Amino acid sequence: MNMKSKEEAFIDFIAEKYALKGSRDGIFGIGDDCAVIPGPGKEQYVITCDMLCEDTHFAKAMISPFELGWKSAAVNISDIAGMAGKPLYAFVSLGMPYPDTEYCDGFYRGLCSCLDKNDTLICGGDTVKSEKIVINLTVVGKAGRPVYRSGARPGDAVMLCGTPGASAAGLEALLAMGRERAEAAYPLLVRRHLMPEPVMCSFLLKDLAGAMMDVSDGISKDLAALCLASGAGACIKEDSIPVCDALKEYCSAEGKDPVALAVSGGEDYGLLFTCRPENSGICAGLMKENGVLCTKIGEITRKEEVYMLDKTGCRRPLPAGWQHFGDARS
Amino acid sequence: MNMKSKEEAFIDFIAEKYALKGSRDGIFGIGDDCAVIPGPGKEQYVITCDMLCEDTHFAKAMISPFELGWKSAAVNISDIAGMAGKPLYAFVSLGMPYPDTEYCDGFYRGLCSCLDKNDTLICGGDTVKSEKIVINLTVVGKAGRPVYRSGARPGDAVMLCGTPGASAAGLEALLAMGRERAEAAYPLLVRRHLMPEPVMCSFLLKDLAGAMMDVSDGISKDLAALCLASGAGACIKEDSIPVCDALKEYCSAEGKDPVALAVSGGEDYGLLFTCRPENSGICAGLMKENGVLCTKIGEITRKEEVYMLDKTGCRRPLPAGWQHFGDARS
Repeated sequence: MNMKSKEEAFIDFIAEKYALKGSRDGIFGIGDDCAVIPGPGKEQYVITCDMLCEDTHFAKAMISPFELGWKSAAVNISDIAGMAGKPLYAFVSLGMPYPDTEYCDGFYRGLCSCLDKNDTLICGGDTVKSEKIVINLTVVGKAGRPVYRSGARPGDAVMLCGTPGASAAGLEALLAMGRERAEAAYPLLVRRHLMPEPVMCSFLLKDLAGAMMDVSDGISKDLAALCLASGAGACIKEDSIPVCDALKEYCSAEGKDPVALAVSGGEDYGLLFTCRPENSGICAGLMKENGVLCTKIGEITRKEEVYMLDKTGCRRPLPAGWQHFGDARS
Repeated sequence: MNMKSKEEAFIDFIAEKYALKGSRDGIFGIGDDCAVIPGPGKEQYVITCDMLCEDTHFAKAMISPFELGWKSAAVNISDIAGMAGKPLYAFVSLGMPYPDTEYCDGFYRGLCSCLDKNDTLICGGDTVKSEKIVINLTVVGKAGRPVYRSGARPGDAVMLCGTPGASAAGLEALLAMGRERAEAAYPLLVRRHLMPEPVMCSFLLKDLAGAMMDVSDGISKDLAALCLASGAGACIKEDSIPVCDALKEYCSAEGKDPVALAVSGGEDYGLLFTCRPENSGICAGLMKENGVLCTKIGEITRKEEVYMLDKTGCRRPLPAGWQHFGDARS
């Protein structure tokens, strides 16, 4: 169940040896979507940091500068949302063959569209020359009560915000057909991959959620991480996984299994959280009021394993984790 | 006097258009060594962010992984020191041809040597695959009273911590002779370029200094930036610029002018600050107690120009700004 990729094992090695893993003196380091440090008054700052490299995380031909800017912001804001935080400040480093004012302007327009929509201010950064495009964002948010991965308890409802799998289908289409044809055939899926929308209302759940994280690597992998951190397991139900119409159409045309894509596909930047079962309706209602579909997809179990019950009631192991653009290529 | 490079003009364009330049609601954005945001109690957080790219900022053959790690930390810690802050937390993103455990381990050992020495904890980051090495550090520090560039007043003493020019001479030697020969001939200068030591006791000056910034681009350029931010000018005296023995020897052997290198050379990560003239002795004493040479090199003037008085009392314009590794090559 806890199969780690080479990359994850390597990051673990670095984190164990050199970084603060877990918490000390009110500081939380590596192991969740964000680090947590003391903030003003009763608040805490949640901080996340992501690096995106050309040809590892994206191909220049597949994503416009505007979309790349948007996605860079969305990915980091989603990590803030994954701790029930609200983003405040962004620090943007951009390396590129220098200076391409037009590209850079497009990138910043996309970045700021997403940041502005989420009330986030660029407060610093760096612009440097590099052979390939590289982006690093550090986003600082605030959280009245950060929600960690480790707070899931047996009996909790497993809740999902968003409709998973659409981004993965979008990437599949882009890789198979190229940008133009993919966009003509599956515009919604391509958009979901290139310009994901983070779940910004997650802070409303701060007193109701036990555990929380954003879904960047797919339900399968991320739910396993949440369970591992909580020392628990989970059972999800196949027929409760929400599948959007665009994904259904794609799977029907391409002969794919929508549930498999929905469970294993990453980069949707939805949200997984747990809550006491009696609160699942309140939580779903709060999200719905903010335009976010929120579905109960299963429950937390005592035994440390994660599985799915299919439509016939049979246990099925969860499919292997999501491979991002670069992994899929190499 | 305010001659801007293409890079600076480009960064200004981005900052003007998209980022918070100056301050709003107690938040200070772009324009100083760090951004400033509210911290716990009476403290403020100072935050800086730097990206270093292979073949732009360094050549793999010239710097060991350990030294690269050290320098990455030192450069950012120096920005924190430049606001009279103390570093607390680091967020480290590393992109590299993946996974080179040995290189990565060396890098993190160097990074952590510098961070540990300065009581700074790695709290987050990212490790990704990229064709060339790229590093982004975000460092969060605290400051009881951040000191900005804009606080210089006519009549203030211009103070310098450290002995400038050594790093520039080290780079010159590395570029001209290659690593092995440069290190044999000028070990101290090469070390000053590859493993600079930030001025960590600058927080002691928080109530005495009017303006402050770290010296990354050379006195010539950085003093001009400080004066521009303060709406003032400065006059420095050639014979008060401290020149270390190693730099004297290098200049004597290579037929160079030590003062020209000391004034225009960058990447020493010393400190420039201003204080009321009656406090210059106290400030220098505080720094000396902490092992840092601190010298009065001139004074702030009302007229917005920066110049040097040479040994004969003649005015000389300051030499042009420092070119970092990548600029020097291109």
